[in-house]
Amino acid sequence: MMNVICLVSGGLDSVVAFHDALQSHKVLGALSFHYGSKHNYREIPHARWHAARASVPHEVIDLDFIGRLFSSHLLHSGGAIPEGHYEEATMKSTVVPFRNGIFLAIAAGYAESVGAAGVVIAAHAGDHAIYPDCRESFMSPMALAMELGTYAGVRLLRPFIDRRKEDIVVRGGELKVDFTRTWSCYQGAEIHCGRCGTCVERREAFQIAGIADPTEYADSGPLPPKP
Amino acid sequence: MMNVICLVSGGLDSVVAFHDALQSHKVLGALSFHYGSKHNYREIPHARWHAARASVPHEVIDLDFIGRLFSSHLLHSGGAIPEGHYEEATMKSTVVPFRNGIFLAIAAGYAESVGAAGVVIAAHAGDHAIYPDCRESFMSPMALAMELGTYAGVRLLRPFIDRRKEDIVVRGGELKVDFTRTWSCYQGAEIHCGRCGTCVERREAFQIAGIADPTEYADSGPLPPKP
Repeated sequence: MMNVICLVSGGLDSVVAFHDALQSHKVLGALSFHYGSKHNYREIPHARWHAARASVPHEVIDLDFIGRLFSSHLLHSGGAIPEGHYEEATMKSTVVPFRNGIFLAIAAGYAESVGAAGVVIAAHAGDHAIYPDCRESFMSPMALAMELGTYAGVRLLRPFIDRRKEDIVVRGGELKVDFTRTWSCYQGAEIHCGRCGTCVERREAFQIAGIADPTEYADSGPLPPKP
Repeated sequence: MMNVICLVSGGLDSVVAFHDALQSHKVLGALSFHYGSKHNYREIPHARWHAARASVPHEVIDLDFIGRLFSSHLLHSGGAIPEGHYEEATMKSTVVPFRNGIFLAIAAGYAESVGAAGVVIAAHAGDHAIYPDCRESFMSPMALAMELGTYAGVRLLRPFIDRRKEDIVVRGGELKVDFTRTWSCYQGAEIHCGRCGTCVERREAFQIAGIADPTEYADSGPLPPKP
């Protein structure tokens, strides 16, 4: 039992991590970031919904400089979102440089300000292939920097770092998470596209987990083969 | 010789570090942060001035959430700035939680976006007493997180980490830095107050370095004894 801050984007992983943290910790705050991505407007309302239902304060932090100064196809300022598999090299164009480093540094300062001893992030094993700032090799020194750079020694909790996305879906099922109140699609249209890397990853995860996927997809045709 | 980004607040240390970096690296950008401190409006114009003279792009990143969500007497939202010695316990009230962690994380992402291989920070030995995020024990894992969390392996350069402030004044003298174009005072009034911890530290540094201090202070009476 620890006082914690949760990073909650409104995506499937972080929403499940938030409900998981509610079981074992006192959650003092849920943090979302608006950084100019194409899907921020879709996911953040879900984060707000889950936080409100749990009576946890929800803060949306505006990082507008990312859209202005950083290069990534995930951003409104970038090119088209690639279709295909989440772990493919083409998905590299959607990387926002050091995004998790920025989110975690802000969360560490916020945690210290409100008296939280830990920060929860939902990074998981499926993220590792193309995102350097999701790997344990990054998380481990970042955790140390957070601990030694704050008076309180803020700890970085990463409950899903060794799990696959399907494990997170299973855990969400156990926790009775309303998956329709989570957003994955990088396109950020009215409904999930079903074809971008994150949609494919989401669809596969439900299939492998053997849990019915309640998500409405624009295209729910056959999944592409694994790379 | 490396392509680098410099953190330049407009304070004495970071302005000297910027001119030092111009000698040995290609500086692709100077970054300042507006985070709601009482002296941001005084220091940032100096950063802009030095960057413009060196024809280096200068970006000011707005972190307005810090003033809203973080607690510190350094901020407009906080209490009064204490007088006395920089290394005293009372100065702890001016700590902005994990500020350097946040600045460095953003700089790492920006560096990766513009093709810089390094980030320069001016943290020095005199900062260590009360600021956990200025110590080498923080800098070292943060450097590793930046390196392993970016594709380019962005490096953290900390040329002054073992130097005292007076050494930085000496280096600034060698580089013919215009010290009147630097700002230290945490009060953020029209001229340096001469009594707050940063003013006392600045005045002492010039005295010890044996270099004439061109700064105009509201109160340039005798310095308080060392704690």
